[in-house]
Amino acid sequence: MRIGDKHYESIWLDKDDDNAVNIIDQNKLPFKFEIISLRTVGDVFNAIRNMTLRGAPLIGVAAAYGMYLACLEITAYTKSREHLRNAAKYLKSARPTAVNLEWSVNRQMQQLAQYCRRDRLVKVALRTAHDIAGEEKDKCRKIGKAGLEIIEKLSKIKKGGTVNILTHCNAGWLACVDYGTATAPVYLAHDKGISVHVWVDETRPRNQGARLTAWELENHGVPCTLITDNAGGYLMQKGEVDIVITGSDRTALNGDTANKAGTYLKALAARDNNIPFYAALPTSSIDIGIKNGINEIPVEERDEKEVLYVEGLYNDEIVYARICPENTRASNYGFDITPAELITGLITEKGICRAGEDDIRKLLSEKKD
Amino acid sequence: MRIGDKHYESIWLDKDDDNAVNIIDQNKLPFKFEIISLRTVGDVFNAIRNMTLRGAPLIGVAAAYGMYLACLEITAYTKSREHLRNAAKYLKSARPTAVNLEWSVNRQMQQLAQYCRRDRLVKVALRTAHDIAGEEKDKCRKIGKAGLEIIEKLSKIKKGGTVNILTHCNAGWLACVDYGTATAPVYLAHDKGISVHVWVDETRPRNQGARLTAWELENHGVPCTLITDNAGGYLMQKGEVDIVITGSDRTALNGDTANKAGTYLKALAARDNNIPFYAALPTSSIDIGIKNGINEIPVEERDEKEVLYVEGLYNDEIVYARICPENTRASNYGFDITPAELITGLITEKGICRAGEDDIRKLLSEKKD
Repeated sequence: MRIGDKHYESIWLDKDDDNAVNIIDQNKLPFKFEIISLRTVGDVFNAIRNMTLRGAPLIGVAAAYGMYLACLEITAYTKSREHLRNAAKYLKSARPTAVNLEWSVNRQMQQLAQYCRRDRLVKVALRTAHDIAGEEKDKCRKIGKAGLEIIEKLSKIKKGGTVNILTHCNAGWLACVDYGTATAPVYLAHDKGISVHVWVDETRPRNQGARLTAWELENHGVPCTLITDNAGGYLMQKGEVDIVITGSDRTALNGDTANKAGTYLKALAARDNNIPFYAALPTSSIDIGIKNGINEIPVEERDEKEVLYVEGLYNDEIVYARICPENTRASNYGFDITPAELITGLITEKGICRAGEDDIRKLLSEKKD
Repeated sequence: MRIGDKHYESIWLDKDDDNAVNIIDQNKLPFKFEIISLRTVGDVFNAIRNMTLRGAPLIGVAAAYGMYLACLEITAYTKSREHLRNAAKYLKSARPTAVNLEWSVNRQMQQLAQYCRRDRLVKVALRTAHDIAGEEKDKCRKIGKAGLEIIEKLSKIKKGGTVNILTHCNAGWLACVDYGTATAPVYLAHDKGISVHVWVDETRPRNQGARLTAWELENHGVPCTLITDNAGGYLMQKGEVDIVITGSDRTALNGDTANKAGTYLKALAARDNNIPFYAALPTSSIDIGIKNGINEIPVEERDEKEVLYVEGLYNDEIVYARICPENTRASNYGFDITPAELITGLITEKGICRAGEDDIRKLLSEKKD
């Protein structure tokens, strides 16, 4: 999407240098906008591990480009098969729980298995990385088109008045290649001239809403307002929210959806105020091996420091400020589970479906994609 | 309650100097523990206005002591009646929406109306201020005793296992004179040897939970864990919360309760997980002039800077760090309204009652207090 007057994606091959894969340093956003060039498998590993780039789809794409860089590293003296196997293993270990990461590295390895010559390997790896990036982008665009219909309907109901969308965390283009998931319908609606406005939950503890979603939307020109995670309930009570759209980290076969902690609270408030609540996700996030999300989806417990400190800009320096007494301990579960019955629908690249086993099975079996 | 080995209240007459009223500088907590002496009406005004002290009950008590300091300011050349009227008007203007502030200044003026001599005025004003402080303390203790019964029952159900209490914002002794409202049952239970543990919502934007409630509980020795405002829902889903107790800024005749933004979200999650949700409050917070809280309780909109920045400690300095892009705008409603049907009961100094008009009227008409 746009940053100022220019269109960006979250990862791209440098146009002047085929040996460099460029990304935006997301750790420094929104305080500093810096582009980093990744030139080695180690660079890609570190970028994933240090969360210089984040978001399941983008991690997958970055790893695919990482395998391309691995091919470039092959010299006349390299045992190329062994080198690629090592690179694959190394990249996969950068964020062990990321499903997309493993999937895209495996896909590269499968493609590369048929070739031996360096020039062929390089060419195939680059094409595969471009393919994966293109497919991710295409999926997000399709999610956007599906969600756009809902926003268009709301706009008609409001006779062209502004549609107020509440979102939690960052399921935006920075986490994908372009468009994002939860944000895709918003960008498409805005670009089509529909009046939209986004309530951006700051999303403690890491403040991805305040730091990334607000930054994305503002740079693309979408009107938005930052709110604390506490505020959405009252805004719904006041009638200031027309729809809630969030992402999904994992959706179970029964429709229960794991997403950033706090999503469940917004879903409860949406139901209490008769406001539609949608999760936007690629169907690859649906885990048919999990029958019941509430009981079975594991929830990561993260470092308490994220709660005890807040990262922000002070005197033009990015600082960690402690917000509580010196000896306070904190608990920090990363996600919560929104039960299917609170979800109006799932917005996917194959269309919208009800959050229930029958509808999900039907959607997955369709050959539309 | 205790700070280290010593018992404190949130306001007291200096034991060596009758001209000084001491308070704890709550703006610096939990980073620095500083006691400030208020010696003039102007000092009290500034302390209230700058939120060096906060919490409706404490503001009322401080204003009462402010009128005592006003009496001390009378000299042989002062028109004492005019001086007191001016002081009263000035103090009331420090936080225009605080009901307790107006009420306690008016009570002082009524008491003082019967006297002219400086020594009598000083004596009566001090006695009245002590009376008001004592009554506030007594009310909180009674709220604590009423709520203690609920915690004792939960402790029995859990066969002496730890009772996990979730609270939002600071309705603690710092906001009152002692005990607090939401915290009073917790302190009494802990002091009685019942095993309790408190989940402390950080309570963005001002983080009163992280800064004040965590500090209070830790200093008194009550086990507690800080969580983001997003986390309570998942903890309830996991069965880690046995009861939610919050304060109330204002409760309508129908039981709808205005409290710090985010309270409503916790009440929704409590209901969804069959967890009792109580509001603890003095009956003076019940506004019988408001029939329907959702429709009629006005909600203050506060400065957006509270959302755009977080206050914390960095390099031993209290700093405001910006958490979002430079041009981001924010919305900042201070409260939300928890509908009566989500409230299991109101814990008051007159006992516990259901959050509904009939029960509230009956409670208020009782002469127990």
